[in-house]
Amino acid sequence: MDIVKGVLDRSRLAAAKGITAVENEYPEATGIMQALYPHTGRAYILGITGPPGAGKSTLTDKLAKEYRKRGKTVGIIAVDPTSPYSGGAILGDRIRMMDIAMDEGVFIRSMATRGSLGGLSQKTADAVKVLDAFGCDIIIIETVGVGQSEVDIVKTADTTMVVLVPGLGDDIQAIKAGILEIGDLFTINKADREGVEKLHIEIEMMLELSGNKTGWKPPINRTIASESEGVLSVMDSIEAHAKYLKESDELKTRRAESIKTELLAMIAERIRRHINKTVAETRDFENTILRLQQREIDPYSIADDILDKIIKQ
Amino acid sequence: MDIVKGVLDRSRLAAAKGITAVENEYPEATGIMQALYPHTGRAYILGITGPPGAGKSTLTDKLAKEYRKRGKTVGIIAVDPTSPYSGGAILGDRIRMMDIAMDEGVFIRSMATRGSLGGLSQKTADAVKVLDAFGCDIIIIETVGVGQSEVDIVKTADTTMVVLVPGLGDDIQAIKAGILEIGDLFTINKADREGVEKLHIEIEMMLELSGNKTGWKPPINRTIASESEGVLSVMDSIEAHAKYLKESDELKTRRAESIKTELLAMIAERIRRHINKTVAETRDFENTILRLQQREIDPYSIADDILDKIIKQ
Repeated sequence: MDIVKGVLDRSRLAAAKGITAVENEYPEATGIMQALYPHTGRAYILGITGPPGAGKSTLTDKLAKEYRKRGKTVGIIAVDPTSPYSGGAILGDRIRMMDIAMDEGVFIRSMATRGSLGGLSQKTADAVKVLDAFGCDIIIIETVGVGQSEVDIVKTADTTMVVLVPGLGDDIQAIKAGILEIGDLFTINKADREGVEKLHIEIEMMLELSGNKTGWKPPINRTIASESEGVLSVMDSIEAHAKYLKESDELKTRRAESIKTELLAMIAERIRRHINKTVAETRDFENTILRLQQREIDPYSIADDILDKIIKQ
Repeated sequence: MDIVKGVLDRSRLAAAKGITAVENEYPEATGIMQALYPHTGRAYILGITGPPGAGKSTLTDKLAKEYRKRGKTVGIIAVDPTSPYSGGAILGDRIRMMDIAMDEGVFIRSMATRGSLGGLSQKTADAVKVLDAFGCDIIIIETVGVGQSEVDIVKTADTTMVVLVPGLGDDIQAIKAGILEIGDLFTINKADREGVEKLHIEIEMMLELSGNKTGWKPPINRTIASESEGVLSVMDSIEAHAKYLKESDELKTRRAESIKTELLAMIAERIRRHINKTVAETRDFENTILRLQQREIDPYSIADDILDKIIKQ
């Protein structure tokens, strides 16, 4: 089938095949993406991240439902960067159990690590573009957010929501600090749990410490997503942020930044492949490693030597 | 002061300054590392990783104490990849509270994200080399292990221990799958908690599923680190693994692999810097981004074009 034509004709099967092509790095993937690219840039992209167990999937489910009520079509990409073995099966199961999975106006897809994580971030960005060209009004990227790779994944979103939950212990503090930077809105889920006030104050304090360089002050909402409590307030905050981005022209700046990051990552990935082919898989390189291991040479000088051989100056 | 000479003369101050030079990318850092490199490769490197709240710091503390009893000097590098804002301050505080922090035979250092995470993994590897040249017999790298970046950090270790804890909920399952691959030993800490048997069986099942390609079957120990319970069994397992690596010649293979990974990462980092300087910061590139944003061109073709300009074919 012609995947590009299918996607533009709103065929679910074509969209699924397009994402599969991207995910598995089929040879036709680049051609598909090149053809779809002119048809992208219309969807609004929402990133949802937060530590394991914060209830991100449930909240995503409820938000998607609310968007459907408002007549919007929704794409959901659930990214699981931590599970090379399970191939995202666990996340996939959870996704399939979502209430909205049977809705024709909702397209759900899970993506997991196959190979490098840099690759996963690129593949997620491409999957978003497929769903954008396919015609989804809203695309939600949901990812477990605790490391840099997850941050990279949600960076492509227009609005990023960080979901936290009271009482996850001390180490979580560090995580919060790490993802604060990317949060346009914060949601304290499971807000009937003990520690909600403490967490709220902590987020406020950290936001103050980090300083506000834009005209947007990240709101902190509270939800009990499993009971749909507070979901409408979250929706309001998302809409308010979208409005702010458009009116302040920041949407354009952000998207330019995101394209730039993506392009640089693509170049880096291509170079990585080039190095693997021309340097890492040669007999000469094996010999270099042996000499390094015997401390006859040092890696810092060798890295410079190899660079000189690869790069046009 | 001459940092290289100081480190080789076992000056703590020199070692601290060496790591600071590496961490902050001082111009002299490369020279220091080049000079220290021939004096590395003697320490045994233990990686400890696991989800937030698993009690890794406490376990590290107890293991370090036990090594001291056996007459070994210990270096501890605690890596916090999640906290760009706090600058590792939270982790640093926890580290300074360790019992063994006052012991002259123990060198403790925390490292946090400043800039790119790829950078952090390289800086950790360099800090390990400083402590190796400084004369530490055992070097423990402790990191919160939930994403690929943390996996990269502990990959340089000879023995990697994954610390888990019962009852952390569903999402943790995915994390477990992700870090299983790198575990040479598993420790279930807080083993007096409910769910310890379930977790034990889950780890065993996953290990069976993943298949065992070497002669080493990862042991699963149980500890209550805060009460020093089970720490000696963990020590035995570490020693057994070290013995296995040496006798099977796998230590040499692993270290060669680790040097290879590190060298390739160094090259990639240098290329990244080169691209930023020669491509990303030019007026021409800004124009490209604008045209991409207007969908006049597509990033996949542009990435290839830029590659042709940079790379010698």
